[in-house]
Amino acid sequence: MNNFSVRNTTQIHFGKGQIAKIKDEIPADARVLITYGGGSIKKNGVLDQVHTALNGYACFEFSGIEPNPHFETLMKAVEIVKKENITYILAVGGGSVIDGSKFIAAASLYPNDPWEILKTYGAHVADAIPLGCVLTLPATGSEMNSGAVITKAETKDKLFFDSVHVLPRFSVLDPETTYSLPTRQVANGVVDSFVHTVEQYMTYPVNAKVQDRFAEGLLHNLFEDGPAALANPTDYDVRANLMWTATMALNGTLNTGVPTDWATHMIGHEITGLYGLDHAQTLAIVLPAVWKYKKEQKKAKLLQYAERVLDLRTGSDDERVDAAIKKTEEFFESMGNPPRLSAYSLDASVIPAVAEKLTQHGHVKLGEYGDITPEDVKEILKLAL
Amino acid sequence: MNNFSVRNTTQIHFGKGQIAKIKDEIPADARVLITYGGGSIKKNGVLDQVHTALNGYACFEFSGIEPNPHFETLMKAVEIVKKENITYILAVGGGSVIDGSKFIAAASLYPNDPWEILKTYGAHVADAIPLGCVLTLPATGSEMNSGAVITKAETKDKLFFDSVHVLPRFSVLDPETTYSLPTRQVANGVVDSFVHTVEQYMTYPVNAKVQDRFAEGLLHNLFEDGPAALANPTDYDVRANLMWTATMALNGTLNTGVPTDWATHMIGHEITGLYGLDHAQTLAIVLPAVWKYKKEQKKAKLLQYAERVLDLRTGSDDERVDAAIKKTEEFFESMGNPPRLSAYSLDASVIPAVAEKLTQHGHVKLGEYGDITPEDVKEILKLAL
Repeated sequence: MNNFSVRNTTQIHFGKGQIAKIKDEIPADARVLITYGGGSIKKNGVLDQVHTALNGYACFEFSGIEPNPHFETLMKAVEIVKKENITYILAVGGGSVIDGSKFIAAASLYPNDPWEILKTYGAHVADAIPLGCVLTLPATGSEMNSGAVITKAETKDKLFFDSVHVLPRFSVLDPETTYSLPTRQVANGVVDSFVHTVEQYMTYPVNAKVQDRFAEGLLHNLFEDGPAALANPTDYDVRANLMWTATMALNGTLNTGVPTDWATHMIGHEITGLYGLDHAQTLAIVLPAVWKYKKEQKKAKLLQYAERVLDLRTGSDDERVDAAIKKTEEFFESMGNPPRLSAYSLDASVIPAVAEKLTQHGHVKLGEYGDITPEDVKEILKLAL
Repeated sequence: MNNFSVRNTTQIHFGKGQIAKIKDEIPADARVLITYGGGSIKKNGVLDQVHTALNGYACFEFSGIEPNPHFETLMKAVEIVKKENITYILAVGGGSVIDGSKFIAAASLYPNDPWEILKTYGAHVADAIPLGCVLTLPATGSEMNSGAVITKAETKDKLFFDSVHVLPRFSVLDPETTYSLPTRQVANGVVDSFVHTVEQYMTYPVNAKVQDRFAEGLLHNLFEDGPAALANPTDYDVRANLMWTATMALNGTLNTGVPTDWATHMIGHEITGLYGLDHAQTLAIVLPAVWKYKKEQKKAKLLQYAERVLDLRTGSDDERVDAAIKKTEEFFESMGNPPRLSAYSLDASVIPAVAEKLTQHGHVKLGEYGDITPEDVKEILKLAL
């Protein structure tokens, strides 16, 4: 096991009716900006629950944070924060709303051009408006981590930043808020959580048994309850297990003391930035191709995954590895995310464009060994046509 | 899954050489009381590493914190804290030293008779001296939780308190510090971690899949690396896996949203209080007896444990349950903790004495259903002769 340092201070309130707890978390004299997306939280009653909990608070709203939240949109919220002297941001939504709100929180107190926050991966963020979350879409883990991904619409740059200052002070996870989600968003969340887990697991073994077992446990849950959530959208336990699985998949538990990959995410971000595909769609396309291209390097963990998660115990090593990759592809397909570019009307013309964007962004040494260059990415994407 | 709220703010520094990090955690102007036990940290160089890291700090020492730390001993440290205006306590040792240091931290600022802290389970603890830890014995999880168990030698009362104010600010976990532990302490730590895990797992199912999978993962690790640590004391990965497993077994991760038992611990505490057995010895004695006595109530989870952890897949339900309990007893035996009172020269005279102490302490409704009375405890202990 490698050395690590870890701390996560987010207060979690999990379960039915827990939205009421936000009044215990936000100071009574706060000026609160409630941030959200397209308005589904108005239809399903979540926004009403939030306003009931915040009765008597000075509340403001900022809506319209889009999937893959845009720098341009978020800067409008920064203006409101400054104009209204906002002292607390409450993000109500999924990963895009929370990521966007993290950026608003940091940009509002940033002394220079806020785009610099993305260009420097958050290294110079020294403060942020306190942030709380009401999660309505389990997927990204953003509700309990300090990272965010923001897109500049003008240039199609999708970039990441991380800062302890934007770690949510608290997050409410009420599985009932997810009952009304569209199937596509549920399925995308399952694929996203799955890929988060394997980015921190499917590398090379360092004999980190807690982390391996935890990752395998989360993968089991996704295989079981991903399809179950699509079949029975109002099964509370299924929703609860998916929600907690998604949070645990990216809250600093799995990556302690182990190498991590993240090549799939980096490549996927460029595809979303360029062509607007859902984040999960890009992950489903890229991940199996990365595994095929790096099969030898990842073989030990692929075999462990085959045995422990998929119960594949017969056949040669190569046969079990191939079967594991095939079952993973089938799982993505069953979650409505086919693992190939052609399923999204994209062809080989994507390949040089993605490689070029990665080069532009300086992402030229990807993967757990840092050995995946833009030339390798071209070969990987050929396996994903 | 049940509702839950969870937060854990302890900073962990895990790995080789991480003791150096304590200087980043303790303010430079702190007056530090280094607390420890019998002096093994002098022999194995850990105390030297601590002093090197704290070069330039105002440091004081308090040694002699015994296993099952005594109220009477700890009150002497409280005097030093007050006399020397100590502002930070650094516990260097295992669970007894850390538990004792939590009590010192709280008692030093407690306005009334500090024994009241135990009598009220910590409910009125309003402040404490900041506490950091250097863990040298993986077992209790005290390094990343807010609980402590303290014994009044005079009356043989072994009682528990919990307060967020004594949660360690940071803990250093360097597996190399455990190389020189006596076999008995290593084995005890494995049994303790095992029983912590199952107290939060072997109850009734609430379909909490993350928690179940995580618990099963930790049990796998203990079955694998418990014996391995005895066989190869200086295998770094084995020690690292045991250390991280023990911490994760009782840091607020497993008990989220699930019923918990803790009957074994409550009964075991009385046996230690009365007869001085090691904590782990009492757990090994009591746990299988509780499982046998509550076999029907725990059947669903016993079967899940049998299948997922022990790979017991043949035979009737009852046969698999019995085999699972037997394999657990064999595991305790292999860790040098035989699961019966007679192995420690105790006989049936123990039974009324333990039941009486539980009654005195008001612990008359134990277990996940609160249905284990002192009369039931007598029946349980008959199964442990």
